[in-house]
Amino acid sequence: MKVDGKDIRPIWFDEDAKTVKIIDQRVLPHEFVITDLKTTDDAIMAIKEMYVRGAPLIGVTGAYGVYLAALHSETKEELIAECNRLKSARPTAVNLAWGADRVLSEILKSGASELSQKSIDTALKEAAEIAELEAENCRKIGEHGLSLVEEISSRKGGKTVNLLTHCNAGWLACIEYGTATAPMYAAYDNGIDIHVWVDETRPLNQGARLTAWELGKHGIKHTVITDNAGGHLMQHDMVDMVIVGTDRTTYTGDVANKIGTYLKALAAKDNGIPFYVALPSSTFDWTLRNGMKDIPIEERDPDEVRYVRGSDTTESLDAYGQSVGAEETRYIRGDERVMTHNVLIPPNDSPAANYAFDVTPARLVTGFITERGICEATEEDIKRLFPD
Amino acid sequence: MKVDGKDIRPIWFDEDAKTVKIIDQRVLPHEFVITDLKTTDDAIMAIKEMYVRGAPLIGVTGAYGVYLAALHSETKEELIAECNRLKSARPTAVNLAWGADRVLSEILKSGASELSQKSIDTALKEAAEIAELEAENCRKIGEHGLSLVEEISSRKGGKTVNLLTHCNAGWLACIEYGTATAPMYAAYDNGIDIHVWVDETRPLNQGARLTAWELGKHGIKHTVITDNAGGHLMQHDMVDMVIVGTDRTTYTGDVANKIGTYLKALAAKDNGIPFYVALPSSTFDWTLRNGMKDIPIEERDPDEVRYVRGSDTTESLDAYGQSVGAEETRYIRGDERVMTHNVLIPPNDSPAANYAFDVTPARLVTGFITERGICEATEEDIKRLFPD
Repeated sequence: MKVDGKDIRPIWFDEDAKTVKIIDQRVLPHEFVITDLKTTDDAIMAIKEMYVRGAPLIGVTGAYGVYLAALHSETKEELIAECNRLKSARPTAVNLAWGADRVLSEILKSGASELSQKSIDTALKEAAEIAELEAENCRKIGEHGLSLVEEISSRKGGKTVNLLTHCNAGWLACIEYGTATAPMYAAYDNGIDIHVWVDETRPLNQGARLTAWELGKHGIKHTVITDNAGGHLMQHDMVDMVIVGTDRTTYTGDVANKIGTYLKALAAKDNGIPFYVALPSSTFDWTLRNGMKDIPIEERDPDEVRYVRGSDTTESLDAYGQSVGAEETRYIRGDERVMTHNVLIPPNDSPAANYAFDVTPARLVTGFITERGICEATEEDIKRLFPD
Repeated sequence: MKVDGKDIRPIWFDEDAKTVKIIDQRVLPHEFVITDLKTTDDAIMAIKEMYVRGAPLIGVTGAYGVYLAALHSETKEELIAECNRLKSARPTAVNLAWGADRVLSEILKSGASELSQKSIDTALKEAAEIAELEAENCRKIGEHGLSLVEEISSRKGGKTVNLLTHCNAGWLACIEYGTATAPMYAAYDNGIDIHVWVDETRPLNQGARLTAWELGKHGIKHTVITDNAGGHLMQHDMVDMVIVGTDRTTYTGDVANKIGTYLKALAAKDNGIPFYVALPSSTFDWTLRNGMKDIPIEERDPDEVRYVRGSDTTESLDAYGQSVGAEETRYIRGDERVMTHNVLIPPNDSPAANYAFDVTPARLVTGFITERGICEATEEDIKRLFPD
């Protein structure tokens, strides 16, 4: 997607530098920093510490991570061990294992137990293909989701369609277009009048920081709200449709997504508002029946709840203008952050808990928007769309 | 209540200084600052800018505000005009008008059109009485609520009772004990093993900052969570009961409270968890039937959403230990905050909206805990308890 007129993706292989590069999403929107990934450990750190996040992007980073592992491994045995470390970087997103395993299995197809330059080339090619596949999937999700927004728009006689989204399932979480945002970009690009309520999405504020930034850069009207506000807006007819992404969805339609999604689904149900989940097929987990019982929910560092990262007000105006678009490369370790910093909210001796995801049961989901089309949140209808 | 062994209330009349004093709740828990209120404008500023907040405390500040207005008014006409300004400082809390009108009507009982020293004495006496009344109401709320916690505790064979609360309906929001926290203090003081999940309560984080601080000072086990987390906890049997306060409740049982309360009520209903609202009778609005339609919902400055106030991590450890308990007096204007400051979260050019309250319909409320006992959230049962 374009940022200040320049094409960019959240991850890419830089042919000149022979390096995998990512946008450091921890410091957006106040700093725009490109970071190099050179080793498996860099990829693990980038995933764990959320330099990169979002189901499809984690999958693609996993894929490039296998390439990095192949660069530094002598044997297939060694590579498999490295891949296992990589795949355990985050437990909830199913795409991580999906992306990593797909690259790994391409390499393992050759008979030799040693790795060769060909293994490395295969890995790089396969990772790039996965990235293209995810981009294309998101484009199609936008196409299919567009029909839903168009329908609301024409029912409202062209009046503004108010969408609500939680967290960031935008192009920053994917490769292009995003999942939940793909119908928004498609609607905007087709001249439909839309406005997006952006849940800030504590603890890491991916909504306020990333979704607001993405939508703003594309010119889409949006308003940042606290995670508490959505219910009130839905009660007062200020939301026409909810669209969110997902980190893992069972074949029965239970949706793991950023913590708080379940609360929005309850409010949508209570107010008769359509609640859609946008996802590529790589996010379906074809092995799990019961989302509430079977999807592992990651518990992250409580300090993510206790501290909030932001831009110091005294610098923010200048910092924002200067830093975004003024690309800067830093290495993944030893970097110094100057413009953003953390403030502590609760008493220093109060403990906190940080459950990163929750599971929205299928009964609260109106439908799924996938690259193959739209289906209901039932095993039957999901399998109709994905018989393979 | 006691803070580091010293008795304190969130508002009091200092006999020696002949001044109304308040705790500045905007900077807790990182700074402990006492502020003087000397004029009606000081009281209005303290209420508007949320130096003081919480329905009962706003009521008592309104009462003392009438005393301050009487100090500086010549005639009853002038006083009435000042009281009208005062009562419009915040629209949602019904207690503000209740507290102010009660003091005003005592003054107006005398025949003269001029104000006298006796008017001022009457105002001060009446304000103090309202404060005592609220403290006593909260004590009784604790007594009645205790029975509910005891019941769960004995059903669980003495295992930890997990409570969840939103925002701060603690003694800081009242005078003593709090409303939602009164049953918690009573349970803890009676040796019941409890643990409280504290919603941080964005945008102003009154849960993380104030409730966590209060509970910690009293020795009650608690864990700060994001506003997004409660649904997940309820799905996994980690919450036995929800108790919240309210800023205004209709006689039919619709509950206006801090934005996000409605979402927790939906999750409690979906998971069969009791959802109680604790309130003194001064918070019932006997004129309103339909909470969703009739309760005015305050929209506050979007910058409260865009910025988060906290303690700079480099200072927080020291600052916390040194500042709490080390009382410091500042005037309401011209003060300089040194230990807390704001950081900006979203892009500087992204707009935000800040609806301060939402309305939880009576159908989601298990019951009310009042100074007269417990009742269901129906007009019939509320009027049984309050036939007057």
